[in-house]
Amino acid sequence: MSSFFKRSLLPLAVLACAPAVLPSIPFALADEGMWTMDHLPADLMKQRYGFTPTAAWTERVTKASARLALGCSASFVSADGLVMTNHHCANECLQQLSGKGKNYFQDGYSAKSPADEQRCPAMELNQLDSITDVTDRMQTALRGKDGAAYTTARQAEESAIEKECAKDDPKKWRCDVISLYHGGRTALYRYRRYQDVRMVMAPDQNAAFFGGDPDNFNFPRYDLDMAFMRVYENGKPAKVEAFLPFDAAGPKEGELVFTSGNPGSTEREVPLADLEFSRNVTVPFIIDNYSALDGALWQYSRESTAHHQEAQERVFGIENSLKVYRGRVDVLSDPKLLDAKAKNEASLRDWINADPKRKEAYGDPWAKNAQALAVKKRIFKPYVMLEGAFGIQGELFQYAKLLVRAANERQKPDAERLTAYHDARLPALEAELGSTAPVYPDLEKTELAFSLTKLRQVLGADDEMVKLVLGKAAPDDLAETLVKGTKLADPKVRLELWKGGADAIAASKDPMIVLARSIEPQTRALRKQMDDEVAAPSRQASEAMAKARFERDGVSSYPDATFTQRLSFGQVKGWDENGKAVPAFTYFSGLYDRATGSDPFKLTKPWLDAKTHVNMKTPYDFVTTNDIIGGNSGSPVIDSEGHAVGLIFDGNIHSLGGDFYYDETTNRAVAVDTAAIMEALKVVYKNQALANELSQGHL
Amino acid sequence: MSSFFKRSLLPLAVLACAPAVLPSIPFALADEGMWTMDHLPADLMKQRYGFTPTAAWTERVTKASARLALGCSASFVSADGLVMTNHHCANECLQQLSGKGKNYFQDGYSAKSPADEQRCPAMELNQLDSITDVTDRMQTALRGKDGAAYTTARQAEESAIEKECAKDDPKKWRCDVISLYHGGRTALYRYRRYQDVRMVMAPDQNAAFFGGDPDNFNFPRYDLDMAFMRVYENGKPAKVEAFLPFDAAGPKEGELVFTSGNPGSTEREVPLADLEFSRNVTVPFIIDNYSALDGALWQYSRESTAHHQEAQERVFGIENSLKVYRGRVDVLSDPKLLDAKAKNEASLRDWINADPKRKEAYGDPWAKNAQALAVKKRIFKPYVMLEGAFGIQGELFQYAKLLVRAANERQKPDAERLTAYHDARLPALEAELGSTAPVYPDLEKTELAFSLTKLRQVLGADDEMVKLVLGKAAPDDLAETLVKGTKLADPKVRLELWKGGADAIAASKDPMIVLARSIEPQTRALRKQMDDEVAAPSRQASEAMAKARFERDGVSSYPDATFTQRLSFGQVKGWDENGKAVPAFTYFSGLYDRATGSDPFKLTKPWLDAKTHVNMKTPYDFVTTNDIIGGNSGSPVIDSEGHAVGLIFDGNIHSLGGDFYYDETTNRAVAVDTAAIMEALKVVYKNQALANELSQGHL
Repeated sequence: MSSFFKRSLLPLAVLACAPAVLPSIPFALADEGMWTMDHLPADLMKQRYGFTPTAAWTERVTKASARLALGCSASFVSADGLVMTNHHCANECLQQLSGKGKNYFQDGYSAKSPADEQRCPAMELNQLDSITDVTDRMQTALRGKDGAAYTTARQAEESAIEKECAKDDPKKWRCDVISLYHGGRTALYRYRRYQDVRMVMAPDQNAAFFGGDPDNFNFPRYDLDMAFMRVYENGKPAKVEAFLPFDAAGPKEGELVFTSGNPGSTEREVPLADLEFSRNVTVPFIIDNYSALDGALWQYSRESTAHHQEAQERVFGIENSLKVYRGRVDVLSDPKLLDAKAKNEASLRDWINADPKRKEAYGDPWAKNAQALAVKKRIFKPYVMLEGAFGIQGELFQYAKLLVRAANERQKPDAERLTAYHDARLPALEAELGSTAPVYPDLEKTELAFSLTKLRQVLGADDEMVKLVLGKAAPDDLAETLVKGTKLADPKVRLELWKGGADAIAASKDPMIVLARSIEPQTRALRKQMDDEVAAPSRQASEAMAKARFERDGVSSYPDATFTQRLSFGQVKGWDENGKAVPAFTYFSGLYDRATGSDPFKLTKPWLDAKTHVNMKTPYDFVTTNDIIGGNSGSPVIDSEGHAVGLIFDGNIHSLGGDFYYDETTNRAVAVDTAAIMEALKVVYKNQALANELSQGHL
Repeated sequence: MSSFFKRSLLPLAVLACAPAVLPSIPFALADEGMWTMDHLPADLMKQRYGFTPTAAWTERVTKASARLALGCSASFVSADGLVMTNHHCANECLQQLSGKGKNYFQDGYSAKSPADEQRCPAMELNQLDSITDVTDRMQTALRGKDGAAYTTARQAEESAIEKECAKDDPKKWRCDVISLYHGGRTALYRYRRYQDVRMVMAPDQNAAFFGGDPDNFNFPRYDLDMAFMRVYENGKPAKVEAFLPFDAAGPKEGELVFTSGNPGSTEREVPLADLEFSRNVTVPFIIDNYSALDGALWQYSRESTAHHQEAQERVFGIENSLKVYRGRVDVLSDPKLLDAKAKNEASLRDWINADPKRKEAYGDPWAKNAQALAVKKRIFKPYVMLEGAFGIQGELFQYAKLLVRAANERQKPDAERLTAYHDARLPALEAELGSTAPVYPDLEKTELAFSLTKLRQVLGADDEMVKLVLGKAAPDDLAETLVKGTKLADPKVRLELWKGGADAIAASKDPMIVLARSIEPQTRALRKQMDDEVAAPSRQASEAMAKARFERDGVSSYPDATFTQRLSFGQVKGWDENGKAVPAFTYFSGLYDRATGSDPFKLTKPWLDAKTHVNMKTPYDFVTTNDIIGGNSGSPVIDSEGHAVGLIFDGNIHSLGGDFYYDETTNRAVAVDTAAIMEALKVVYKNQALANELSQGHL
């Protein structure tokens, strides 16, 4: 699985917002780069691989790529709306469809015809329609503004742009204003939205995530981390504009390949001070808290089969994030990275200070940023515990918080709302609240009691907010009372409160709503402080650094990742691990060799039965030099003809440094081979209908 | 409770061994200092407090102080061997005496006469008898040696010195060779050992650890963290040489007070490179692993009352360690500390390099140390997982490992053994193996399964040692098999294997012994590498730095803590917390105000019944400027007349920096007031016999 390439689990968005210098790390570009579709590095590709993308090639790759709103990438692989992505991107849907003796997440899903394809209760797929530069418009709106005024102006202008963009049909279009180069450029992304997404096929979890957490981020690897879904329009399979023909031969060693996907975020352009903040504050805090939750859910999962199933997806997500953060511990203490940053920033600072005009134009962005970080450090813990939801966990409280916050926001004019509550985003929120995904009371109580205990531990028993939340109750007792008392597990109740708006929320006696309501003023205040005193000055500092660099060096690189569509180029290639060559491919034979019979190295019956029938020499997984990161999960691997030859699902252990720099010698993307997909569909899962659709490109 | 002042839980001894520069941090000395009893800072005390200790005062304080072998401090408070220490230092004994419907740990213990005093199954108390300087002898033995030769020579010489020292009666004497100033000086400590230690009185856990983990390391505080035990000789209360008269009036604000105890270890003299290693490697690793275990045991404890009780002590210990390590994250990224170190080392290095003779004499200890740290980084994970026991946890495996290691070591001449297996130390090991403390199978399985999962996660499924330990089994299944199959829960079985020695171990089919035996060659190799390639060169580097500093500055300070007796001086004094004064004392009234009725702020019936009878104005806990650290738990607070006026049990949150520097403005020791002890004994626990003994100084 490796939801490495899914985006992060918890709402730390503001914490991730870090200013920019560009390009900051003096590694050779090589196969580095997450390029925007409207600025592909044609010269570089030609120089390295003799390849120049035609307009048709680029158009097809752009339109055949898609994004799952929950944080994954995907692609169309037939004219009839067939979507290829990862099993770990379909987890949630598979769990939501399960129940009544069926466990599709564990056992797999296999529709033999559209009639068997069930709709995912809360899945939205976005297909990129256009990119428009709105840099000038944003810069005009923000000129001369600071702090709260800056935040307000930014929200208002973004809201206006997005509204205009989607106005002919907000249910059809999703419009996002995206800041690139940390404010150096602003672009409007318009997506076609598909909300009727149905499950077509998923393998069993043992095959999809073979090797489990121990093998996660490792290679050689043997995961069939795939899932197929289909988008529908008016109750019928949608006819899509473009798709990637599925090449069941897979790629060759050394072949030029591309990935098209939505890398979530990178921090390659952020200043040294922000990296140090991550190392000293954010990373230790998150590891500490995630590890404790991981331990608690590990034990919870041992208590019964039901508990195991309830917690499984959450555990995978947490363990995956933990690997990412553990990787950061190493990277963020690497003198190679830190020294290069320090040198690079010193030279830019000197360049600015060498000329009084530049000094006046750019000011001292480092000082401005340092001030912002000082505020961030001071409010970090209350912010992440209360506004960032580390301190009150569980889906029920998240619903309550969303309902309370949305009721407040929706009373304001669109332009004054927080970004997530703009009119354009409301359909997605409503869909989330209407999800028929089951809520598990035991798991809810456990996560809630756990997080309330942490809340008190982190902020201290004498903290006013802790007293407000806990009163004189023990965390376990309060969790029990809240989960037993709330009706928010019922989507109808949630949708009624949503429709009832501010009045319904104010009148509600639901204990979860009461709790969310009672802390809302303080969490809003924290949010406002983070926006105005941290995010705004940080962003201004980063804009100044980016502009100074543009002035000095010109624009010659790609922007940090922003969960928007990017293309990377590279080749199928192993690497050298401490003097030992790691080959580029694994094969079916290796899968059977590695199986022990025990989790997470256990094969299910269909696999054991197929052992004598599969071609053991069929490639299984492979690695490439493509530059990817979390959010790229489900990205297709594409050959120079524009055909699908693989499916990205992970990176190797060295890719964990990819947040901060790209190192072509060891950083590798990990993909499922299309040959493995075809062999498994035919021989193991015996889904000939799907195999046929892939081969012929339509139903 | 706060076992802050107990020493660390897991066998990380070698990891803690870090070289030295002295004195490294340019803070004013102030009340700083953990002074050895044979080198008290008479001038400083006179200058700051007008106090000069008489020989009789020093003698009484020395002889009335004691150490619990498990990692705490204590004092004699009556002529009849009555010992005062912390409740959290008596935890283990209270749990071991429990069972058959009694839970002394939770409910307290109260003997009204010696006849009711039960013997602790595995408790040893040591009373300091003498300190002898053996620096010259050690330096002669080590001259010109490196790596393995250095390690061997050091072990041999230490063994010879200790053997000579205890030879007239090894059961009576414990002799430890202690390296001070990281090798700058070596001393021989001889202790009188008491192995018959009986429980006299302990309060209920709710009172002892009121406020639990949330209040741990905080102040204002309301803990009655006390326990009374008694040493016996020939079955009768021992007549001791010296004791501290118990002054039930307690201390006054501003009064000069002393603590006499055994601070476990500090790192005030270690080089910058070692601090960076801690920050980048050790601290993140330990927080990660302890937090996960803490989460697992948190959930385990919620499963049933029995599980809660089984895990309680372990959980307290882990959470306490976690607070310490979380504090280190902050301290180790504090530029104030790091910059001072860097400057200080640069000046010493310049001073050495300025003179060819000095350059020849001291070499480049920083380069030597850097090389050692590079090896340490490389073997850190396998070392802590396998030799350091993070990867195979639980008491049963620890017994197995001890038996296997001891059987090997005992075949060698004393001088060639690892320190822990010298003849002089064997009685303590045998006592440990003979402990009648209960072993809880569920808890064992949980910790074992948890740690085996971690082992595979940290080292990877393809690691040879992981394959050796797990084979094709899942961690849960292996844990189940091992715990079910082993007979090591029975102390008789353990003692038989101990007595049977190497032959018995080689012949054993006990699965836990088989496992320990199978990994012994590799863990020994890791140990040897850590000793020879890390500890030895680090120690040599630190010796060189210490000697260079002695030559340049003279000896003017105290050595880093070594779990040997030290005296600190200071005064009863609050501090300023962000502009808000924190008073020095709390009172009974505050305890009742803070009680909520829910754990961990719940008072038991005796306390609720006593509410109308206690004097609410009686002081409860107080803070002082004394410089203490983990291991000081149970230290008496002594006034200038040599009377006991308090009982150390914790430090405030700022004391967490005490590992690395002492800051008089905020670092505070936290103690129980003797007035509170007397009031609680009389009014709450109604143990008039013990109150009388304390008042009159004898039974």
